Amino acid sequence: MAYYNKGANAERELMKSLASRGFMVVRAAGSGVNQIPCPDLLALKKGKILAFECKAWKGNYVYIKTANFESQEKFCEISGAVSLIAWKIPNHGWLFVESNKLVKKGKHYAINKKQAQANSLNLDVLAGLQETLEKK
Amino acid sequence: MAYYNKGANAERELMKSLASRGFMVVRAAGSGVNQIPCPDLLALKKGKILAFECKAWKGNYVYIKTANFESQEKFCEISGAVSLIAWKIPNHGWLFVESNKLVKKGKHYAINKKQAQANSLNLDVLAGLQETLEKK
Repeated sequence: MAYYNKGANAERELMKSLASRGFMVVRAAGSGVNQIPCPDLLALKKGKILAFECKAWKGNYVYIKTANFESQEKFCEISGAVSLIAWKIPNHGWLFVESNKLVKKGKHYAINKKQAQANSLNLDVLAGLQETLEKK
Repeated sequence: MAYYNKGANAERELMKSLASRGFMVVRAAGSGVNQIPCPDLLALKKGKILAFECKAWKGNYVYIKTANFESQEKFCEISGAVSLIAWKIPNHGWLFVESNKLVKKGKHYAINKKQAQANSLNLDVLAGLQETLEKK
């Protein structure tokens, strides 16, 4: 799979984007060290919790290791967070997909670009700034 | 002021303590770097959000710089989190105080040990595991 990993930059970009929509944003530290399930980013506003697993890939699929995926699902179930995959396709922008749209394939959960585009949510809608599901 | 700073250990101890009460716990990374207001720890359960500023001090007061305190207050107001100070007094245990119990003194917000003990909340109550405010 061709890929292009600019994970850290993408994460910072997403943080700014969420902050500009009125969220308080937390980047999680040391989740691996502490063996506690934890998403990459949390966005919080008035009790609404969005949990993001961030990926920056050029390829046609995004893959998440089963252990990481299940860890995020557990986190979201217990915390009450909405579980989201934030996929940055370099030079094309972001797709935001609910994690239940991913399908288990061997040792990973995956979604292809077409399915991700068809199911992508608008960040303004997720932020409660826009009521319809009309895409930008 | 005599103090005893075991901040990182205290933070890990609190994380375990919250996890054992059914919370998902997130330690925040790089809040200073990103200039985004952010508490030390977040504990989440079924949409309930607790935000902790952690202190490990031997002294009779706990102080928080005004800028940090106001940053946490802003975070909690926007996110919908309960704003808490977790004060570990080495060899004596923990006090959990709502941040509105602290009083501005010069460049800090502060509370003394007696007031903190009188206002300390039980972690089981905060976790929703115990209904009364009866202290352990």
